Amino acid sequence: MKKLLLVVIASQIMAQNKLPINWTVGYHKNIGDTPANFYPSTVPGAPQLDIMIAEKYKQPIWYADNVKQFLWMENTYFTYKVNFKKPDLKPGQTLVFHSKGIDYEFIISLNGEKMFEQEGMFRYVNIDLTSKLKPSNELTITIFPPKMAGSDRPKDELNINGFFRDNARTSVKPPMSYGWDWHPRLISRGIWDETYFEIKESQFLTQSEIQYQLDGELKNAKINLNIEGKNLKNASYNWQLKSPTGTVVLNKSGKLDNDFTTISDNLSNITLWWPNGYGNPNLYTSTLEIKNNEGNTVGVQTKKVGFKRSRMVMGDGTWIEPTIFPKSRSVAPATLEINGKVIFAKGSNWVPNELFPGIQNRENYEPYVKMAKEANFNILRSWGGQVINKESFFELCDEYGLLVWQEFPLTGTNYPDDDKFLNVLELESEAIIKRVRQHACLAFWSGGNELFNEWSGMTEQSFAMRLLNMQCYKFDRNTPFIYTSPLFGMGHGHYVFREEKNGGEVFQWMPKGKNKYTAYPEFGVPSVASVEELKKFIPANELFPPKPGTSWETHHAFGVWGVNRWIELPFLEEYFGKINSLEELVSYSQLTQCEGYKCIFEEARRQKPFCGMAVNWCFQEPWPCAANNSLVTWPGKKKPAFDAVKNACRPTLASARFQKFRYEPGETFACDLFMLNDKYEKLAPMQVKVKLVYDSNKEITFLNWDFPGSDENKNYEGPTAKIPLPKMSSMFFKIIVEVPSKPEYNSEYTFLYKVPKGIKTKFLNGVSE
Amino acid sequence: MKKLLLVVIASQIMAQNKLPINWTVGYHKNIGDTPANFYPSTVPGAPQLDIMIAEKYKQPIWYADNVKQFLWMENTYFTYKVNFKKPDLKPGQTLVFHSKGIDYEFIISLNGEKMFEQEGMFRYVNIDLTSKLKPSNELTITIFPPKMAGSDRPKDELNINGFFRDNARTSVKPPMSYGWDWHPRLISRGIWDETYFEIKESQFLTQSEIQYQLDGELKNAKINLNIEGKNLKNASYNWQLKSPTGTVVLNKSGKLDNDFTTISDNLSNITLWWPNGYGNPNLYTSTLEIKNNEGNTVGVQTKKVGFKRSRMVMGDGTWIEPTIFPKSRSVAPATLEINGKVIFAKGSNWVPNELFPGIQNRENYEPYVKMAKEANFNILRSWGGQVINKESFFELCDEYGLLVWQEFPLTGTNYPDDDKFLNVLELESEAIIKRVRQHACLAFWSGGNELFNEWSGMTEQSFAMRLLNMQCYKFDRNTPFIYTSPLFGMGHGHYVFREEKNGGEVFQWMPKGKNKYTAYPEFGVPSVASVEELKKFIPANELFPPKPGTSWETHHAFGVWGVNRWIELPFLEEYFGKINSLEELVSYSQLTQCEGYKCIFEEARRQKPFCGMAVNWCFQEPWPCAANNSLVTWPGKKKPAFDAVKNACRPTLASARFQKFRYEPGETFACDLFMLNDKYEKLAPMQVKVKLVYDSNKEITFLNWDFPGSDENKNYEGPTAKIPLPKMSSMFFKIIVEVPSKPEYNSEYTFLYKVPKGIKTKFLNGVSE
Repeated sequence: MKKLLLVVIASQIMAQNKLPINWTVGYHKNIGDTPANFYPSTVPGAPQLDIMIAEKYKQPIWYADNVKQFLWMENTYFTYKVNFKKPDLKPGQTLVFHSKGIDYEFIISLNGEKMFEQEGMFRYVNIDLTSKLKPSNELTITIFPPKMAGSDRPKDELNINGFFRDNARTSVKPPMSYGWDWHPRLISRGIWDETYFEIKESQFLTQSEIQYQLDGELKNAKINLNIEGKNLKNASYNWQLKSPTGTVVLNKSGKLDNDFTTISDNLSNITLWWPNGYGNPNLYTSTLEIKNNEGNTVGVQTKKVGFKRSRMVMGDGTWIEPTIFPKSRSVAPATLEINGKVIFAKGSNWVPNELFPGIQNRENYEPYVKMAKEANFNILRSWGGQVINKESFFELCDEYGLLVWQEFPLTGTNYPDDDKFLNVLELESEAIIKRVRQHACLAFWSGGNELFNEWSGMTEQSFAMRLLNMQCYKFDRNTPFIYTSPLFGMGHGHYVFREEKNGGEVFQWMPKGKNKYTAYPEFGVPSVASVEELKKFIPANELFPPKPGTSWETHHAFGVWGVNRWIELPFLEEYFGKINSLEELVSYSQLTQCEGYKCIFEEARRQKPFCGMAVNWCFQEPWPCAANNSLVTWPGKKKPAFDAVKNACRPTLASARFQKFRYEPGETFACDLFMLNDKYEKLAPMQVKVKLVYDSNKEITFLNWDFPGSDENKNYEGPTAKIPLPKMSSMFFKIIVEVPSKPEYNSEYTFLYKVPKGIKTKFLNGVSE
Repeated sequence: MKKLLLVVIASQIMAQNKLPINWTVGYHKNIGDTPANFYPSTVPGAPQLDIMIAEKYKQPIWYADNVKQFLWMENTYFTYKVNFKKPDLKPGQTLVFHSKGIDYEFIISLNGEKMFEQEGMFRYVNIDLTSKLKPSNELTITIFPPKMAGSDRPKDELNINGFFRDNARTSVKPPMSYGWDWHPRLISRGIWDETYFEIKESQFLTQSEIQYQLDGELKNAKINLNIEGKNLKNASYNWQLKSPTGTVVLNKSGKLDNDFTTISDNLSNITLWWPNGYGNPNLYTSTLEIKNNEGNTVGVQTKKVGFKRSRMVMGDGTWIEPTIFPKSRSVAPATLEINGKVIFAKGSNWVPNELFPGIQNRENYEPYVKMAKEANFNILRSWGGQVINKESFFELCDEYGLLVWQEFPLTGTNYPDDDKFLNVLELESEAIIKRVRQHACLAFWSGGNELFNEWSGMTEQSFAMRLLNMQCYKFDRNTPFIYTSPLFGMGHGHYVFREEKNGGEVFQWMPKGKNKYTAYPEFGVPSVASVEELKKFIPANELFPPKPGTSWETHHAFGVWGVNRWIELPFLEEYFGKINSLEELVSYSQLTQCEGYKCIFEEARRQKPFCGMAVNWCFQEPWPCAANNSLVTWPGKKKPAFDAVKNACRPTLASARFQKFRYEPGETFACDLFMLNDKYEKLAPMQVKVKLVYDSNKEITFLNWDFPGSDENKNYEGPTAKIPLPKMSSMFFKIIVEVPSKPEYNSEYTFLYKVPKGIKTKFLNGVSE
């Protein structure tokens, strides 16, 4: 038993026969220099954090303007160092260095001799060190400073805010870390994923992958298991597949032909994987075991497999023949069809949940993925400004039923038709595709974010785009690919509750999207964080009133797109009057975020089937933002807008379209009623009531609608309810759309009643008194 | 000397050591059948024509409704047969069968044994027959009936007109031959390009290709010559490159490493190839000679090479940031930049110049290519409904300076995501790209025609599109690739002078395209053929009045898109009154074609730089059309519109925009003046006069404009000239925009004066009396 166990853990896939080592890291100015100090390093992690601890920087990094301490580091080299004795290797055994990710351009040396170099953070590194080992060894990894392309600003003008994404335009590396409107300039580098030294036996399994082709009825599949290893000729295998309920549906044994073997079989009566809201995220379990001629296990791999088919199709009504000549083309397809069913994609833009990819892991991914499911989302757009997430992210999305729109790490700039860059992109994209295609959650690929807009300047002719299309076609053609978002027909924005030059409030511009936008892949309404969270990262003396130049600005409340974005103070004061306290500011700001998001999500759904997607900007954030469009403040605190969005994304709900947010005394209030239904179930007839609630306890039911029932996956437009607004003393009133027989379909909206001067009242949790 | 000559002609490239053979062909119902008769066959050619001659069909094929005799043939197999004695082969010699094109699905057998089969008409066939030869041999090529996909009409409803392109949707084969609005249903098949048996020596050159990479300044290039052959190891080569003026600029000799050798060099001070209107189509001459160890020449290849760089860029002003949120993308790039200069693409859609590709050749291509140059065109869109033209077409375009927009042979239907189809498309497209990329004239690739429109139903997600993008990127990435036309921003149509529901006359809808359309890749104005031509193919008793159901309909004057298209009788009679003779019909029809085309070409040019292309539908036709949008009637007879278009496409001209074509007595006539200039030369100041000419000899100059001069490659907008129309007795009047100092810039336009009833006058050559 003991022997078997030892051999099992020697397989690279289990990767347990690791050398115990201690990493250290230091920094230096020139490539040949030796760092003045080597500090203890956490791997995977971020050298910046190791230095912060060793050199006793102000902590934590996310407090006040502590992040400014890190800016100088982008001009240095980092060198990791590890010393180890040569292990006692038996004949046939080798010592291998393995890393799943080193960010971004680096050289690996053993005892001063260069063993490997790479530009690219996504390709795994595997180096057999055996023949170069000495009794005592020193392995170093030297990380180059990040490339600084296309910067037209002198280095000393760099600051912690602002967009410097052009610096990243020759790198296949997250441009967001060069500075974004919710991310400080803080360029990630270093060992960011699992990395270790391992003693390998003479025979081992390196990897296996399941590929399948579903038949037209999505009931049966041809299934292949591709096995790759070393010295596996004539080794015996056993491959077992268990259904989501644990039944063994496939059990196959035999001998392997060589180091690359494909085992094929047919599978029938498949239980499909479904995204949240359309069924269960059913996963099969595949177990492969390889034994050598002596009967010893030389490799075991257990994997989850979900069966699904994803297509990007034209939504009903989007095949519009341009009405008169000269005729152009119809819009680009933007509706997802999963397992033959058209779905309405509801979700959010996933951005990093930590400042450094090296500290992202299953533990800190999971609360967010769980919340995304709770929000009734079925998709996450893994936006192109960040890293390709670690395996555990995709495993969680597989498990929770969240589709992933995966972008390559390109965004918002013009990546060149340059051989060196394209070569890195070709190698990195192949590694990315081959890893991520194995996940049931993968909905489609995208070349990157906003690349065909003026501010980026790329087109269909850009080599990087054509290359990525080729790579996805070569390695994963059954998964749809789009060059970028927005494509023709899609719309990004807006990102605020109201801007006059954009047509006013969300209530005003959103309904104009009808039969115009196929998808809303980005839109946002900002709010400031809660009082409790703000107090954690903004020093007490800066808390109120918020001012530019303080931690509020470092944390993106000011100076992002103009002075007052994302805090939007002039807008808030125009609507709500002079703001007297932090509590008032937070309440007003969060109320507009709630009502704005409800409006957009519900209106986008009303525009189905021409529209197929509503994906807001953004879900979470990598560090605490004082003001942001996010639904969840770092580290994982829901804003009130989270619940508002969750309600707007219920599969079925009673909903209403409104004309505006603020009303004057004497106006007639009007709203158009709808039953929204994304379920593949018919709705029965039911009574719907529309109520006005004001002054705490006053309530007027002003419409009773006999909803006659409706078809599956169809919305239904009801009557317009109207009421002359009564005299109110409250600053707010609510509209409740109530379904007495199905209270889970009820919806509630809050509006501003512009009371005459002098009757200013205190805002309290929605309805004021 | 004699020996040398013999060896030279044995090289495949010279291909002179051919076996003299006589082809025969027959037809049969089932694949195993022997044809009842084998008739003499012209190869390359069309079996349909061989049968027509042998079975004494009514001739010629293009007269009256003779073409209907051929319809039954699409349901048969054709088998070609050739008998030959085994040639006297010396040791090392082989007998090879070679074909540059067999249409479409076929089996080649020798003495009853299957040697080869292929689906695809564009891959060259090379079969070494040597080991299978008997003293007497019979080689057969059996051609399958064409595939009939997606037809929702019963076979017996097929007729000679109408669109049946869905039948072609699983074939990489011209859909146009299944029936189009200017092509009868007549599906091409058979040996359509050069085909022969050849005795090969033991050493030979199979092919060589020159590839180059120009530097950023387009002055110098890295140049590679890739040589491929058999038993060439240690053979010596001499490679000579002569400049367009005959100077030897490169002369390199050495030994070949093996059967695939690349010879590299640098070239400086390159004389670039330019399209018509922008410079000379300069071609270098490359000569490669290979000699064996005995000093005998075993291969010679002479090629023309033109150096150019083609890019597809965003026209000035097309990078429009969508003005408000939600923001979609900017238009797709549609402006050509050749050798670093933005050009305005002026040209025409090239359609087949013969009914069968097997009878197209340099002799019948050349008059059309020559006329295209004469028309001041710089581009031909080789539209996706037809074959990829033969080598001689591209050689002519190289020589005459006509850019080629080359589409793959896909158009107007939904090509499936089907492995079998995609496999053929992958192989065929590779062969096409590797052949055509060698020509200087190649401007850009397109996946096919109108594929992203409702009537086709394909999208960016269609595998055929993604595959073609990949193939072009892999094999010719420096040539731009577009999925299809129209893309977002481009406009196809309209195809008539006036249609009320389309916004009226061309004079009315064309100006609305300003800052809206990036390119007009298809537009047309129909006319009937000239009286002389009509009399050649329409029987005398059917000539006048034209009626549906007669040869007029077989030749596309009626029943194409509604009853009266392309003849447009109701429109002509509304404008010109009752038409009393064929001569009158032809004059009125051709006048509207002239004025309509002038309007569109000149207005598209006025929309520069937002607009980058004006390419009319269509240049010529494959057989005589009674009415068509073509500028040239088959076989090569210019219509008056040819000269109208030629004038509208002059690099520099004085031009005017008009509001409409017909005027009432008492109206004020107005026109906006422009100087149009596509030359990279400034225009000097000059006087421009605007004259009204009417009643034969009356003339009023109603504006003198002091044009102040203008920049290179820029248009200049002048004043609006106005005149109250005088009383006229003529039915037509002319406007002449005259530049006394540069009469070559003069322009002339004809308009209809709707004279009161009873004063009907006789139309005579432009201005009537």
